Amino acid sequence: MSDIIIRRGIIVPITEDRKVLEKGSIVVEEGKIIAVGPDETISKEYSADVEIDASKHIVIPGLINTHTHLAMTLFRGVMDNISGIEWLERAWSIESNLTRDDVYWGSLLGCLEMIKSGTTCFADHYFFMEAVIDAIQGSSMRAALAQAIIEEGGPEGLDTTLEGSLKFAKRYNGALNGRITCMLGPHSVYACSQELLNEVKGSAEETGLRIHIYLSESRSELEIIKQRYGTTPIRLLNKIGFLSPYLLAAHVVFADEEEIDLLKRGSVKVNHNPICKMKGGHGISPVAKMIRKGINVSIGTDGAGSNNNLDLLEEMKFATLLQPLAEQDPRAISAWDVLEMATVRGAIALGIEKEVGSIEVGKKADIVLVRRDKPHMIPLHNVPSLIVYSANGNDVDTVIIDGKIVMKDRNVLTLDEEEIINRTQCIFENLLERSGFKTFLDRIPRRI
Amino acid sequence: MSDIIIRRGIIVPITEDRKVLEKGSIVVEEGKIIAVGPDETISKEYSADVEIDASKHIVIPGLINTHTHLAMTLFRGVMDNISGIEWLERAWSIESNLTRDDVYWGSLLGCLEMIKSGTTCFADHYFFMEAVIDAIQGSSMRAALAQAIIEEGGPEGLDTTLEGSLKFAKRYNGALNGRITCMLGPHSVYACSQELLNEVKGSAEETGLRIHIYLSESRSELEIIKQRYGTTPIRLLNKIGFLSPYLLAAHVVFADEEEIDLLKRGSVKVNHNPICKMKGGHGISPVAKMIRKGINVSIGTDGAGSNNNLDLLEEMKFATLLQPLAEQDPRAISAWDVLEMATVRGAIALGIEKEVGSIEVGKKADIVLVRRDKPHMIPLHNVPSLIVYSANGNDVDTVIIDGKIVMKDRNVLTLDEEEIINRTQCIFENLLERSGFKTFLDRIPRRI
Repeated sequence: MSDIIIRRGIIVPITEDRKVLEKGSIVVEEGKIIAVGPDETISKEYSADVEIDASKHIVIPGLINTHTHLAMTLFRGVMDNISGIEWLERAWSIESNLTRDDVYWGSLLGCLEMIKSGTTCFADHYFFMEAVIDAIQGSSMRAALAQAIIEEGGPEGLDTTLEGSLKFAKRYNGALNGRITCMLGPHSVYACSQELLNEVKGSAEETGLRIHIYLSESRSELEIIKQRYGTTPIRLLNKIGFLSPYLLAAHVVFADEEEIDLLKRGSVKVNHNPICKMKGGHGISPVAKMIRKGINVSIGTDGAGSNNNLDLLEEMKFATLLQPLAEQDPRAISAWDVLEMATVRGAIALGIEKEVGSIEVGKKADIVLVRRDKPHMIPLHNVPSLIVYSANGNDVDTVIIDGKIVMKDRNVLTLDEEEIINRTQCIFENLLERSGFKTFLDRIPRRI
Repeated sequence: MSDIIIRRGIIVPITEDRKVLEKGSIVVEEGKIIAVGPDETISKEYSADVEIDASKHIVIPGLINTHTHLAMTLFRGVMDNISGIEWLERAWSIESNLTRDDVYWGSLLGCLEMIKSGTTCFADHYFFMEAVIDAIQGSSMRAALAQAIIEEGGPEGLDTTLEGSLKFAKRYNGALNGRITCMLGPHSVYACSQELLNEVKGSAEETGLRIHIYLSESRSELEIIKQRYGTTPIRLLNKIGFLSPYLLAAHVVFADEEEIDLLKRGSVKVNHNPICKMKGGHGISPVAKMIRKGINVSIGTDGAGSNNNLDLLEEMKFATLLQPLAEQDPRAISAWDVLEMATVRGAIALGIEKEVGSIEVGKKADIVLVRRDKPHMIPLHNVPSLIVYSANGNDVDTVIIDGKIVMKDRNVLTLDEEEIINRTQCIFENLLERSGFKTFLDRIPRRI
């Protein structure tokens, strides 16, 4: 007897042949996928304790969000219509009042939201990362965590040192049955000196930890780096030997042909967060170009303060539609490309592609079921197109992480949804009040 | 006793003062809103046959989609990654095989999808419009309908004459208890001659019918009109006196300062469909600029063949995020602006702003309840931001049109959802087979 059998689904395994299995079944045992194939053969060979009927579903690998600040769910709706620098100032000013408890509850809300929209793994870059570990433990999610390293500016009173980031990473790397991967999190080339970046690089090489940094994301970043170093952020990182296969570069909105070549030569893993870069008025990352060059581009939502949700299915639609606009060509990118960005390419970005990112025998069972018997998912015909262009996070029905069913029929089994909603509302109101944002509080009804 | 009382909601009535009512109630009698105010006063003064508890909801006016081709739900996923001209050729080639029955079922699927995502009124531009009337009658929606007038190109064997459009409009204008407004539907300046457009204009003036046309939507349109007339589509329409307060101009992707002034001077109503113009690689309509000039800009989804859904809440997010990108300024447009585009400005576009578009005493009761007790809608604080940036169509819970409850707790009461889903799948497969698109059919699993 196996643990779980998912039967008769339309399976999009995300394999190189880009095939769709029409009436497929998946068998899960001890957290791993042990069989995938046509239901008629699988159902003869296997039986399991739990059978999930997927005959009304499209089954995809768990989605991987490669750039978040999970606790910034507490910033939802607080940061609209403000420019990059003002945005950062407001964020850091509120964050100077953050407590471990705020981060814990904000992260729990984020985990809840992610599970409900089909994300099973995320790359977080934030503060009080031990509180995020607690939220992950509670929710049973998978994550790659980097405690932010900020030398210049940044919120007051928080540990934003390399030592802190390193200490956290060494302690928790591989924790929670291997669901935690730790990374080092230097914020950016403008918030960290070259010397510090060199130290980070040294520590990464010594420990084998990967690095998660924000790179070339705004015009003001370009200006600062030009003034300070007379070059661009990407060229600066190239010069100091920072570009490597173990670097996850978030955003990369601005990159000319030469810079794209530098990223390619370094085998840098690029993360793309289309919504936040539209909202901030920054620009369109040359994603289609980078994919054609063979760069591994994955996708993220960024924090809810600049999005304002964590719905990776919605983000995929934005990612797919921005490239035809940028290249004036509807063939710039396909639904398949973006489905891969949100799954297998996310796994590659975090160095966990041997474990997750596709539905294949031997991989860990991170699996998402999307309802397809809904008016906006009819006619059934072009399956990747339905997922990328027609569906949204609320269509996700069932989520399995590490072989454990964490959501069934939209009920999250690992978390208390009502408690989290009520607690985070209070946490939010207190945080804003402490931060002196009285004007916002006028608009808050006190009880939900 | 009134008919319906909606109690204790957070009401966004869409009035000029942009106020939000925190614990508000709405009373509906004989299809109209007869009271709106704080629950404590309203609940003392009124009682009703049906009480709807809105304490977990944000209550907004029914959304108005000002550019659709409803039956093109049958084209979902068939038209991805193809350029403008190829798109039109494929569409017209399939449409040459359309039957009245196809349009009826495709429109029913569209009505179902719209109701489930909070749209109560739509402006359709298509063929076999009597079949759309049948779908509207069944679903109890509100609509402004234009039968397409195409002189050049276009699908074969369908009635695309001015006479047909006029005959339809005269017969059905004001039908279904006033839920139907008819318009004249000349396709575009490239598919209709100047002579024909002049005739359309004359007929419109004679009958008082408004006009719904596609305008300045693609680079190929600009080229054709430049070759044929040596000018731009907007300038051409200005020259022949076609720009008027009764003209709904769909798309308007390309418009320079002078053209925007021409539209403003003519009090033309502009419709914006951000998603389809990204998908086709066309461009970003200068919406923020037009709004600053005082032009009435509304919003639509276009058909599902170029979107690929009819979710106006999702479309609002795209509309809000494209403008910061276009203007490199996060303050280009606000959530309030776009909420108005999807409600009161839609009503103005269709000339029905005295009847619908806001939640005010005397207006017809087209009302939508959006659930707010969901993780992605927390914290509750910036209400318009939650609707525009965080919500999607699946968060819509209850829909009232013309004082009738058409959806309650996501159950559509006027339509048989299962039957429509199954029938439209068959209708789609038959249509594609008749149209000779065998290659697509390979990918279709025969049964849902």
